[in-house]
Order: sequence, then C-alpha cells, then structure tokens
Amino acid sequence: MADVDSQAGFAYSGLFAADLPAPAGRWEGFPPHYFIGGNNDPTLIPTGALAEAAATVLAREGANLAIYNMGHGPQGFPGLRDFVAAKLRRRRGIDCTGDDVLITSGSGQGIDMVCRMLAAPGDTILVEGFSYGGAITRFRKLGLKIVGMPLDADGIRMDALETILAGLAAQGITPRFLYTIPTIQNPTGSILPLDRRHRLLALALQYGVPVFEDECYSDLLWGEEAPPALYALAPSQVIHIGSFSKSLAPALRVGYFVADWSVLSRAIALKSDGGTGALDQMVIAEYFSAHYTAHIERLTAELEDKLEVMEEALRREFGAAVETFRPKGGIFLWLKLPDNVDVRKLIAPAAAAGLVFNAGPEWSCDAEAAKSYLRLCFAMPSREGIEDGVRVLARVCFEQTGIPVRSANVENAR
Amino acid sequence: MADVDSQAGFAYSGLFAADLPAPAGRWEGFPPHYFIGGNNDPTLIPTGALAEAAATVLAREGANLAIYNMGHGPQGFPGLRDFVAAKLRRRRGIDCTGDDVLITSGSGQGIDMVCRMLAAPGDTILVEGFSYGGAITRFRKLGLKIVGMPLDADGIRMDALETILAGLAAQGITPRFLYTIPTIQNPTGSILPLDRRHRLLALALQYGVPVFEDECYSDLLWGEEAPPALYALAPSQVIHIGSFSKSLAPALRVGYFVADWSVLSRAIALKSDGGTGALDQMVIAEYFSAHYTAHIERLTAELEDKLEVMEEALRREFGAAVETFRPKGGIFLWLKLPDNVDVRKLIAPAAAAGLVFNAGPEWSCDAEAAKSYLRLCFAMPSREGIEDGVRVLARVCFEQTGIPVRSANVENAR
Repeated sequence: MADVDSQAGFAYSGLFAADLPAPAGRWEGFPPHYFIGGNNDPTLIPTGALAEAAATVLAREGANLAIYNMGHGPQGFPGLRDFVAAKLRRRRGIDCTGDDVLITSGSGQGIDMVCRMLAAPGDTILVEGFSYGGAITRFRKLGLKIVGMPLDADGIRMDALETILAGLAAQGITPRFLYTIPTIQNPTGSILPLDRRHRLLALALQYGVPVFEDECYSDLLWGEEAPPALYALAPSQVIHIGSFSKSLAPALRVGYFVADWSVLSRAIALKSDGGTGALDQMVIAEYFSAHYTAHIERLTAELEDKLEVMEEALRREFGAAVETFRPKGGIFLWLKLPDNVDVRKLIAPAAAAGLVFNAGPEWSCDAEAAKSYLRLCFAMPSREGIEDGVRVLARVCFEQTGIPVRSANVENAR
Repeated sequence: MADVDSQAGFAYSGLFAADLPAPAGRWEGFPPHYFIGGNNDPTLIPTGALAEAAATVLAREGANLAIYNMGHGPQGFPGLRDFVAAKLRRRRGIDCTGDDVLITSGSGQGIDMVCRMLAAPGDTILVEGFSYGGAITRFRKLGLKIVGMPLDADGIRMDALETILAGLAAQGITPRFLYTIPTIQNPTGSILPLDRRHRLLALALQYGVPVFEDECYSDLLWGEEAPPALYALAPSQVIHIGSFSKSLAPALRVGYFVADWSVLSRAIALKSDGGTGALDQMVIAEYFSAHYTAHIERLTAELEDKLEVMEEALRREFGAAVETFRPKGGIFLWLKLPDNVDVRKLIAPAAAAGLVFNAGPEWSCDAEAAKSYLRLCFAMPSREGIEDGVRVLARVCFEQTGIPVRSANVENAR
C-alpha cells in the first residue's frame, strides 16, 4: 500500500515502475547560446503562405477533421502522401506512389517502429561510427548491441563494413538491421557516393541484413549532386524514412516511412497513436505542393550562408586548433578539437556561460573515439548569435584547456 | 540469414519480431453504415473559423514553428495549456494552471503513460465492468490483470468496489490504479454522483490505489449537472486526462494530462515523440479561447437531437426487444438485446450488409457479461444514415436470431 501523508496527500513515489526515466524538471527556456537540437531558422517560416494553405485546405477538406484520420485510414493524409511520393521520385530517384508511404509523427516514430519490428534487447545492429544521437539513445534504451561502422570523408568505409559483416557471420551473428544516414550524414555531413551505395546494398543482401535509411536531411543539399537514395536502388531491401522537420518546421510533427508492403503493413499496424496531427499534415501538403522548390532554394541559400558565418567565426576564434567537416547540406557542423581536449569537460563550464553544444561522445557508437568532437547547429541562431556563441565557446575552451593557444576573446593570436 | 529470392527481392518474413500485431490490410474505406469509432459530425466542423484562427496565430507566433515545441518545452503550447486550465476550472471545478497541464498526442498517449509509469505485466488494475474498448485493449496487450467494477445506472457501485478492494487486500494485492470514466461513462453514458465520487476517493486513499480519471466526453454534457471531476475533489490522488477529439475533431491529435507534479514530471519524461503537432495545438487554442462555449452549445444540441433520432429508430425497428441506456451526453448509445442474442454472431452478417458496430464483449472486462450488448455511435452519420443503419441492423438481427420478432424491415409489428 502507498504511504499516505495527510499533509502532502497521496504519495506516488513508491508506486512508480523502477525503470522509468528520471522525472522532468520545470522548463527553464533556452540558454542564450543554443547550438543543439534540429531547429530551423525562425525568420524563414512562411507564416503568411502557411495561413493561406490552411484556409484553402480547410475550405476544401476541413469537414473531414470530424473523422479519425479524416476517413482516409491510418497511412495518413492522401495529399501529403502523394506529395512525398512525387518529391522522392523527383529528388531521390525513388519510384513509389502515395500507397507506399506511411505518414509518421516525426521520423523518430519511424525509428521506434523499425526497432520494434526487427530487434529485441541483446540483438546486434550496425550504425555509422558517428551517428544521430537521438537514434543512438533509442537503440541503447532498448538494449541493442551497437556495432559502429567506420567512416571516412565519404561515409561508411566498405572495406571495413565487409570485415565487420564477415566477422559477425563467423560468430553466427546476423545484425538485425543496418542504420545509415547516407545523404548528409549526421553528424559528419558527408554524402555516400554511388559506388559505395551499390556495394553497401550488395553486402547487406549477401549477409541478409535489412538496410534502414534515414534521409532526414536530404532536402537540404547545397547542390543537387547526391546519388539516388538507397531505397531507389533496391526498394525491396531498404526501409526509408524522412521528415518535414528540417525542410519546413520541427514543431510540426510530421515524418514519413517508405517500404515494401511486407514491411509497411507491419509499420501501419504499429501506429497506435490514432494518426498524425491532421492540420500539420494538411498544411504541409498544401503549402509544399505549390512552393516546395522555391522554399528549399531560399532555405538552403540562407543555411549555407549561416554555415559560412560559423566556419569563419571558428577560424577566427580557434585558428588551426579546430578541424571542421564542411557538410554538403543541412543545419549542423561537426568539428574536432585537438586530441588532448575532452569536450565532456567543457559541458558544465559552457552551460555556466549560457552555451550548449552536442558533445561528440553522445553522437558516437564509441564515446572515447569522439571525445574531442562536437556538433554545432547553425540554423536557429542569428548570424550575430553564431559569432557570439563561437566566441563564448572559444573562451570557455581556452579557460579549461588552454586551447586555442590564445583565444581571440583574450587576444587574437593570428 | 534471411532468404533471398532473386525474383521477390529481400524476404523480411523471417526477421520480424514474433510478438508483432498482425500486418495491416490495405485501406478500403468505411462501410456505408458506420457506427463505431469516436468520430464527430462533419457538418459541425467550423472550417472558416479554424482558418481565421490559423491565420491569427500563425501571424502572431508562427515563426516559432522553426523550433521544437516552439521553444516552449515539452509540456505543450502555452496558450493551449492555459485554455485547458481555464476550461477545467470553469466546467469541472478543477483548480489548476497551465503549469499543471501536459498536452498529449491524443488521450491514448495519456493512457499509455499511466500504464508505463504505474503497471507492469501481471499487475492488477481496476476498470469499470463495461469500459472504453481502446483502453481495455491496451491493458490486455500489456498483460495487466483487469478486475471489473460492477456498474449500475449511476456508475460504479461503491458497495461492490469496497468488497473488491477488501478481497484483493486480503490476498495482498494493491491494484496499481483504478481507471474510471466518471462523467459520461463509456459505454453506458452515466454520470457518477457526488456522494459516490467522495466515497470512491476515500476507498482509493484507504487502499493506496491511484485514481486514473478519463474525462474524454465531459465537454459534451446535455446539461450542466455533472458534479466536479474526481481530480477537483482530490488533486493529489487523481491523474486526469481529457481530449479535444470529442469537443472539436479527432483528426486533430490533441489531448491533455493533468496531475500532481510528482506524476506530471514522470509523464513529461515519457513523452518521447518530440512534441504534439504544433499547428493542431495552436489552432485549437486560438479557436476555443474565443468560441468554446458557443461551439459546445451548438454541438451538444445537434448530438442530442441525433441521439433522439437513433432512439426513435431503435424503438421503431426493435420495439420492446431493445433496452437503451440513454447517455447524459456524448456521441454513443449503449443498448441491450434479449439475453438469447449473442451480438458476436451478428458481426459477420452485419459487415456483409455494410454495417459495423461495437460489440459489447469488446467493451467489457468480462466478454460473456456483455454478449447481448452493443454500442452505436451517432455523431458522424446523418439523420437519414442513422435511420437506414438501424433498419439494416434490425434486419440482420432478425435474420440471424428471429429478434425483433418481426422486424419493421419485413413487416412492422406495432
């Protein structure tokens, strides 16, 4: 029985499941120098055009809001599925229709679905050596054994992948899936070349490993040079997910999941949330069906410019002490400080100075291997905010480690 | 290793987790006589006013869509939390602020959260003898032992509850929570009187059982006669959830969760979906902050009128063979056919005739006890659709069971 304290009322503390995450704290807002999270640029949200899109689609189909999934079943708003299919065909070489698309409540729901359908605690999966922290956290929570695939400047090294697969096979282990972000890899920003894509698919097929392709950032290419999606090259062996968080707005919780019906029908059966928010879906479909290309051109131009502001600030503040990995699109920059800097030791002093960043160890299958790396997101802060933040980071780093040798905050060494 | 069929490509079938739900079928649309699901009346969706609300709130706060949770943290859009708090204060006697509210992606997410934080497979919970099928299904999937609380026309019988709690205590069992829908009980439509509310809370406190109050339908009262919410009477021992699915639109996936911070902080930590769709939240907040009362008056008047159409059709088609439990609000009617009718045997022939209904056994802790009951939802169909559907139901029932003795479809006996 629970303790009852007549003063405090009912005491839940003894009743909670033992394996709950720690309770949330009260929300305290963002610190001034906020370089984490997949946020976008607030000045580029087309609020007027979204309002027009809302008015149009509500007038045309709003009555259907009275019905779960607008009466269209659990795969999502047909107009949005059709848009996704058309976009994937045009931009990613994928031959599909709206019938092959499941709209998800953010791409994280897609990651959860794949884990649920293909993996159980103790199972082995393959993940890029540096990868999306949110996915790594999910995989770890589920008790999956993560084997990191070594990366170079072009993404997964195929020689290393072959060695890993052969080694696991020798132990009788078939990885439950291979999770990859081939197009604007998170966090390194690379794009896997076409020959490696073919080789990856051949190896995965040879060893019987489903490929799980996360293309959350592929809308945000600086150029048009990316090879076709893995799914485009081998639809039957790839599960493909994407999102509107990066191309439009992360507060709209809309992603998508594309796969062979044998897989898609399993994902649909796992979607127990009663559908993804309809207004979010309707407005994205209506706005992007007319304005996608122009929106993406405007957005990527601004993002690339902000990236240059960040790179310039890093050069100014850190000089040769920083190695940056210029991404081929997206909203984040991966960078490396000298080997003797452990970024984990910068977290607390940076927070005290009002600055948060993604520490490399949280974005790596092997924490130690990324101890001198960090990820900085540049989409949300203003140009001035980027410059101020990099200055604060350099000062904190200098105070803690003596690197950069003399911070520009203190005295510019160059 | 997975089988590889060069014709069919990659074979996932051997790779799926063994405990997955059955794969979904292709969506085939609604049958003509659709009496299930918490849908609302499409003619009462205020599409123009929602478009105005969208324009206003996008102009004012739309730029924040670029940021996860619009930069307001995981509890949800502040304007909506404030509206929920004000509504609960005014209509349900609850003393709370927006800080006590967590916006959820539908109230089902709240049910999942409570199960996750308080119960584990094999644990015992208390549920009204007849209850919400979606909750019962979730509880069963989790392997919870469901003990049904007997109901009468006013809801849970307190003498029976006391006996159950004492009996469980004698076995050393403390139920992990007591799930109740006290205000417009689903499916019976009753409202628990004030004296029973006090007694329920006293018993729950005495036996150390948290109370989980689901008020999804409390917006849709025909009158204003409901006593205060259980949460209003004992905030420290009650977890309260509600929804906008019934008061506005179920395709908008927005519910709420109100509880003491010791519980709310646990729920927030379990909300791993990156937030609830922002546009859905913003538009509900903006529209309802100005129009809630008028909307609810218009909606409940229409719903009560449709209920009368359904009751009249049932009387006409079934005569004395049907017993209806007139709800005090909401969107569904619970009814009973003679004891020798097993509604499970009507499901297939009804489906063949294009009609679906909620069979009592799926809305009952004890399937056999509800074998002659069914639930019909009346909000979505038109008046003519209600009359047509009840006629089809009577014909199917007559053909299968000889009841009603002579269906009005065949020859009106009255």
